[in-house]
Amino acid sequence: MELYSGHINKLIEELAALPGIGNKSAQRLAFHLINMPQDKVNRLANVIVEAKANVRYCKECFTLTDRDICPVCANTGRNHKMIMVVENTRDLAAYEKTGKYDGVYHVLHGAISPMLGIGPNDIRLKELIERLKGDVEEVIIATNSSLEGETTAMYISKLIKPTGVKVTRIASGVPVGGDLEYIDEVTLLRALDGRVEM
Amino acid sequence: MELYSGHINKLIEELAALPGIGNKSAQRLAFHLINMPQDKVNRLANVIVEAKANVRYCKECFTLTDRDICPVCANTGRNHKMIMVVENTRDLAAYEKTGKYDGVYHVLHGAISPMLGIGPNDIRLKELIERLKGDVEEVIIATNSSLEGETTAMYISKLIKPTGVKVTRIASGVPVGGDLEYIDEVTLLRALDGRVEM
Repeated sequence: MELYSGHINKLIEELAALPGIGNKSAQRLAFHLINMPQDKVNRLANVIVEAKANVRYCKECFTLTDRDICPVCANTGRNHKMIMVVENTRDLAAYEKTGKYDGVYHVLHGAISPMLGIGPNDIRLKELIERLKGDVEEVIIATNSSLEGETTAMYISKLIKPTGVKVTRIASGVPVGGDLEYIDEVTLLRALDGRVEM
Repeated sequence: MELYSGHINKLIEELAALPGIGNKSAQRLAFHLINMPQDKVNRLANVIVEAKANVRYCKECFTLTDRDICPVCANTGRNHKMIMVVENTRDLAAYEKTGKYDGVYHVLHGAISPMLGIGPNDIRLKELIERLKGDVEEVIIATNSSLEGETTAMYISKLIKPTGVKVTRIASGVPVGGDLEYIDEVTLLRALDGRVEM
């Protein structure tokens, strides 16, 4: 039986398909949206479409950004010889929030996961290797300390070592199984300081 | 410090303003949206705007619907002399889901709450009284069993009693402090059966 009218059902369905939003939350959200003033609804829909349309990958580090080259890569004051490898843009933001890291980044957009069928070619690894042809002194691997993150770290380390570039891994101050973006800044910094050569 | 680019920040901000979505969830949602295929993003934005544009109040019971008169009110097979008063469209849907109630509804869109400054004139009470001028035998008050819901029930009961229309309240099978939309169908039906005259 259709509990709500067509437009409401369609809206609930679309919202419930988003990550972390169950059916009940979707219903609440749907009625909240319907009860919002028209201009606010239009603005929200517009912001979604605009973000999707305007956000692209930085040509250097592949983070999601509004410009061809992200502000970090465009900043000549930063140490471009030090590249921190992270799984996604949120993890990059987590380290940027510490305000203490002055190198640049490389965003993989994922981690190697045999279980999910994600291999080395499904993340931005080729692009990382390409960057090492430039003047790079150190690659700091800051993937999550999950199984996938560790697997990815090992894989990258083996791949880079022959090139002679120093490869380090952020220290195990990050709790095992933890997700980088949820960790406090002090722990993130401790992990950075305690990094060891792989 | 701006952690993300303008479009991403704007999107996170809009999403975090929605009920039940914190800053971290908003970030996850934002990146999910940006990574979604363009056509799906457009469809979602469109569904939101369309729902807002097309959903209106039923002219009889004031539930949210696509038409001038909602399917329940338009159904001549239902008992139009019995009106169940609920706080919102989701509560109406909760009773519709039982499939056993054959009367019609009246949706208040809120409850009286002195704390939040919501008075009798801020909910659809005048419209309910207006409907009683027609051929109505019973008004079943099915507001939540929260403080606001009980206050509203008492207020409505006092308002209607002088008109001679029978006023009942769904039984206290509904747990005190509970929210109608989260309660199982059996309990909802027991509460309906056990309703007592006010």
